[in-house]
Amino acid sequence: MPAGLSALQPLNAAVLSDTLDGLGLMQQAMKPFMRPLDDTLQLIGRARTGLYMPVYSAPAAGENPYEVEIALIDDLAPGDVVVLACDGPTERIAPWGELLSTASAARGAVGCVTDGLVRDVKQIREMGFPVFCGGIGPLDTKGRARMVERDVPVVCAGVSVRRGDLVFGDVDGVVVIPHDVEQEVARRALEKVSGENQSREALQRGEKLADVFRRLGIL
Amino acid sequence: MPAGLSALQPLNAAVLSDTLDGLGLMQQAMKPFMRPLDDTLQLIGRARTGLYMPVYSAPAAGENPYEVEIALIDDLAPGDVVVLACDGPTERIAPWGELLSTASAARGAVGCVTDGLVRDVKQIREMGFPVFCGGIGPLDTKGRARMVERDVPVVCAGVSVRRGDLVFGDVDGVVVIPHDVEQEVARRALEKVSGENQSREALQRGEKLADVFRRLGIL
Amino acid sequence: MPAGLSALQPLNAAVLSDTLDGLGLMQQAMKPFMRPLDDTLQLIGRARTGLYMPVYSAPAAGENPYEVEIALIDDLAPGDVVVLACDGPTERIAPWGELLSTASAARGAVGCVTDGLVRDVKQIREMGFPVFCGGIGPLDTKGRARMVERDVPVVCAGVSVRRGDLVFGDVDGVVVIPHDVEQEVARRALEKVSGENQSREALQRGEKLADVFRRLGIL
Amino acid sequence: MPAGLSALQPLNAAVLSDTLDGLGLMQQAMKPFMRPLDDTLQLIGRARTGLYMPVYSAPAAGENPYEVEIALIDDLAPGDVVVLACDGPTERIAPWGELLSTASAARGAVGCVTDGLVRDVKQIREMGFPVFCGGIGPLDTKGRARMVERDVPVVCAGVSVRRGDLVFGDVDGVVVIPHDVEQEVARRALEKVSGENQSREALQRGEKLADVFRRLGIL
Amino acid sequence: MPAGLSALQPLNAAVLSDTLDGLGLMQQAMKPFMRPLDDTLQLIGRARTGLYMPVYSAPAAGENPYEVEIALIDDLAPGDVVVLACDGPTERIAPWGELLSTASAARGAVGCVTDGLVRDVKQIREMGFPVFCGGIGPLDTKGRARMVERDVPVVCAGVSVRRGDLVFGDVDGVVVIPHDVEQEVARRALEKVSGENQSREALQRGEKLADVFRRLGIL
Amino acid sequence: MPAGLSALQPLNAAVLSDTLDGLGLMQQAMKPFMRPLDDTLQLIGRARTGLYMPVYSAPAAGENPYEVEIALIDDLAPGDVVVLACDGPTERIAPWGELLSTASAARGAVGCVTDGLVRDVKQIREMGFPVFCGGIGPLDTKGRARMVERDVPVVCAGVSVRRGDLVFGDVDGVVVIPHDVEQEVARRALEKVSGENQSREALQRGEKLADVFRRLGIL
Repeated sequence: MPAGLSALQPLNAAVLSDTLDGLGLMQQAMKPFMRPLDDTLQLIGRARTGLYMPVYSAPAAGENPYEVEIALIDDLAPGDVVVLACDGPTERIAPWGELLSTASAARGAVGCVTDGLVRDVKQIREMGFPVFCGGIGPLDTKGRARMVERDVPVVCAGVSVRRGDLVFGDVDGVVVIPHDVEQEVARRALEKVSGENQSREALQRGEKLADVFRRLGIL
Repeated sequence: MPAGLSALQPLNAAVLSDTLDGLGLMQQAMKPFMRPLDDTLQLIGRARTGLYMPVYSAPAAGENPYEVEIALIDDLAPGDVVVLACDGPTERIAPWGELLSTASAARGAVGCVTDGLVRDVKQIREMGFPVFCGGIGPLDTKGRARMVERDVPVVCAGVSVRRGDLVFGDVDGVVVIPHDVEQEVARRALEKVSGENQSREALQRGEKLADVFRRLGIL
Repeated sequence: MPAGLSALQPLNAAVLSDTLDGLGLMQQAMKPFMRPLDDTLQLIGRARTGLYMPVYSAPAAGENPYEVEIALIDDLAPGDVVVLACDGPTERIAPWGELLSTASAARGAVGCVTDGLVRDVKQIREMGFPVFCGGIGPLDTKGRARMVERDVPVVCAGVSVRRGDLVFGDVDGVVVIPHDVEQEVARRALEKVSGENQSREALQRGEKLADVFRRLGIL
Repeated sequence: MPAGLSALQPLNAAVLSDTLDGLGLMQQAMKPFMRPLDDTLQLIGRARTGLYMPVYSAPAAGENPYEVEIALIDDLAPGDVVVLACDGPTERIAPWGELLSTASAARGAVGCVTDGLVRDVKQIREMGFPVFCGGIGPLDTKGRARMVERDVPVVCAGVSVRRGDLVFGDVDGVVVIPHDVEQEVARRALEKVSGENQSREALQRGEKLADVFRRLGIL
Repeated sequence: MPAGLSALQPLNAAVLSDTLDGLGLMQQAMKPFMRPLDDTLQLIGRARTGLYMPVYSAPAAGENPYEVEIALIDDLAPGDVVVLACDGPTERIAPWGELLSTASAARGAVGCVTDGLVRDVKQIREMGFPVFCGGIGPLDTKGRARMVERDVPVVCAGVSVRRGDLVFGDVDGVVVIPHDVEQEVARRALEKVSGENQSREALQRGEKLADVFRRLGIL
Repeated sequence: MPAGLSALQPLNAAVLSDTLDGLGLMQQAMKPFMRPLDDTLQLIGRARTGLYMPVYSAPAAGENPYEVEIALIDDLAPGDVVVLACDGPTERIAPWGELLSTASAARGAVGCVTDGLVRDVKQIREMGFPVFCGGIGPLDTKGRARMVERDVPVVCAGVSVRRGDLVFGDVDGVVVIPHDVEQEVARRALEKVSGENQSREALQRGEKLADVFRRLGIL
């Protein structure tokens, strides 16, 4: 993880979502059909987007249906998160798997988020590579879909994502922090985390929730 | 768990569902989108209900959007189960999280059931607090929904629940036992559990299923 | 597992799906709502099918609603996989549970695939019996559905299955290999697995994906 | 229409639904995906039920897949309404069409209600035969589904229907009046219709709704 | 229709949607499950909102469950459009019917838009009162839902609506024009209508679409 | 309509579907969410396909997002049917409207079939141009989707369509007849129509359905 992003490790998806809410940005959490392959992994990185279209026939002879996909992967830099928009949830395609995870990790990329399916789940879990997806299934994209553009604005699992946006994922879900509010969100969220710790301790001592909320204003 | 309920620990959701079926009560199992955060935990307790409505704007200045919710939590007694009806499954709100779990556990409550989403999943799992929910997501209710009534009849995940009804959950799902049939259901279900043990042993010995079913009448 | 099938253990659902795609058979992977109860188990066997219909009333006095179901189980042979077609996904019925798993395992059957729900999940996991299902729930079929035919062609989770078809399941999902292409699929898939190993190693060394794909033609 | 039923012609689905609500029977209106082929027709009659199961293969040689269906139609009596339960809404089968409408009308039957699809819509509309259905499509049941039982309890579009229950349909939807409350419902509903007429006239004169509701108690 | 709004009669939902798109407001068209009861009617007016919550029990004795609803209706002014937000599409409630249409028309209100169901369709069509809804069904709200707030911001069929926003409906759907862009949208949309007329005439003469689009820039 | 196709006018979607079923082609009827704008119009023609992809940003300056679409329309020939595949049903885009209808009719095209939405419904109905669609809505494709390929194989509303396939639509739905079975299907379907007429007459005379079916074998 690049230096700047490691400061965000104390955060979690819930506190980031609350902080974005506080700025009036209430559409930044991906829909709950998006789940991590591994509940224990945290994902923090910058979005590199890919946009898929459905196709209904085999590629023409000599055509490489993975061309844009391969170009995106080979262009990844440390700290990048691959964000694949498949108009999901979908039953039709698994655009991500072990070999792409391996190739991405070799470039320093830190994870993948897709509203499509994912395959090779056993090997990806063994790698410890963070992947958040719209489901699991064995279906290759060849003859079913094709990445036609990369690094363009997309919508993934209900959230707009642009190249360079901060993507944060943990067991509670995936939150996207638009680039221009990133500093403000990080600052406020780190503050809120410490307030929650105080609240938790008071409640564990048996204090009434009404009193704790009145004093700390956190729920 | 209050004394009376510990007698139910040998039971499971499947045998309770069969027993309720036998009494003609065939709508007592919550829909299968309801899943436990922790597959190993058993939930047995009495319902305390909360009913949510959707809202589409921030609370007015000075208004406490959590007022009814806080009152419900602070009023919990040992053995209570919080049942939050959100007209789920929903993608919009996570009415339950770590701080409410902590406050509830401090009052002796034994779990939460909601057809909404849940957040702070890592911490709730670490607490060992049983939660059954309609999904996972980071979205606070503020500006999205509000609990407007408590201890009223609700429908949660397709099942009618009234204050005081017995709520039972395990990895197979959540079953609601209406108060007035509770004694009868418990008695019959405990009997059935012992019959299933005999059936299992006969099958493990290689006896034909047709013979076992003819003799014991259990499948 | 019968001798002939153990040669397939090095395979996985993704490579089988790709191989079937290569033969123009693109509808052989069950829909992603189908999930294993245990992510670590592999399922390889031959289909024995059961077809359910919905019913909306209790069985008549003296009628055995499980008659066809029991006959199917008692007729299982080593290497068989029970495939139960419930027009799933469904919220209404759990046609599979612990006792049927026990009875099936006692006959040498190697697993169950159903687009209905499953119950007694804890005990089935403890048995290590591979089950792939459309969800989890406690609801018995009695008064809700009935198996009316067995060993007939069915559609389960979107895939046509005939008695004797090869059924393969792992964490990536369930794939059905029609009987008449079984040899060809197995041969090609085993070849592809070795190609993927070469591809993985090259990517781990940091080779560009474009180069690896050009050389090996595998993604 | 048999003599007894013609007294119900002044009624409508909304007032019948309200009346059933008043008796605590709140599940008697079929779901809104059920629509009439002709908005102007009223349906009043007694249920004759048919229950379908899905099949996934052509009928065996010499087998008549329509056997139960034909027996039901040939047994219809004046005032009967055919109620076909297909576990709808469905995209797969159209169990009703012109020839069945013609055969039913020839026996004096007064309409059909199905949560499956209907075909031959043009001719059925020209006949003026009331049909309420879950959609329109050309797909024959042969090789897709089969009526396996008739005159058994079914659920159609979410409502339990037994042979002989009163079925009422108009542009607002389909309502089922269980046999044992039929007299009470008819009496109360006819009273309510006259109250609504008074309410309408007061509102047309410009009276405040609050005043009208206070005086007449009808909305 | 109040004087100011009659200037909008030459417009249609499609041209308004395009105009809002041009201003970057791409979420202003209600989802396509919203349909008019009468395809020939145009709706132009200002929003008066009502927000419903689900309830699962009969109102307490002496409680008027329609209180907020009645207050909203009795407060309507000429040119108002009632907008009822039910978190639709829904199968559960029909918050609108003939008597509310009659009372609203008597106050000069010009229509109703709801993502709930509507009943008394025959009478509403005869009145010529424009209603756009999420479906048709006979189910009263009593014991199922309750309007709890009025004239608050709501989301109806996917679009945010505030009191006073301009609501436009025709056979193509319902579009909401936020108050602060109303003048700009009206001006641009009226211009676009005249461009479309030129385009149509050129195409009818057989001109190539490529040429017409190059010249007029309208599709 | 070109000469060859006018011979098909006595046919209907139901008899064509039955005939295709008889040849083992059971996936040729589009799903029932596809409805005609005008129930009285018959559509017979040959497919010209367009394939859309979702986009989530405005076209770049100087880019014509309608380029492929315009090329398809300007290339239409008499008897062509435009088939637009949008991975429907969709709430997001209306790729068809009045101007495209006008331009297509000017080239002799005979209709449009799309699993997307359609707008300008009033004008299209006035033209008498047959359109079958997945819904109605005002949303332009600009900034939401783009036709990226034309005259390629597509799937529309669940059915594979290739350029030149025969497309038949009426009030019962849309059926696609693959090019290579066209002659056989037409011949058999015309025969079946005459059999149905005999069946209808016998039933109208009051003959038992069982007898008519035994004699004529048609239902």
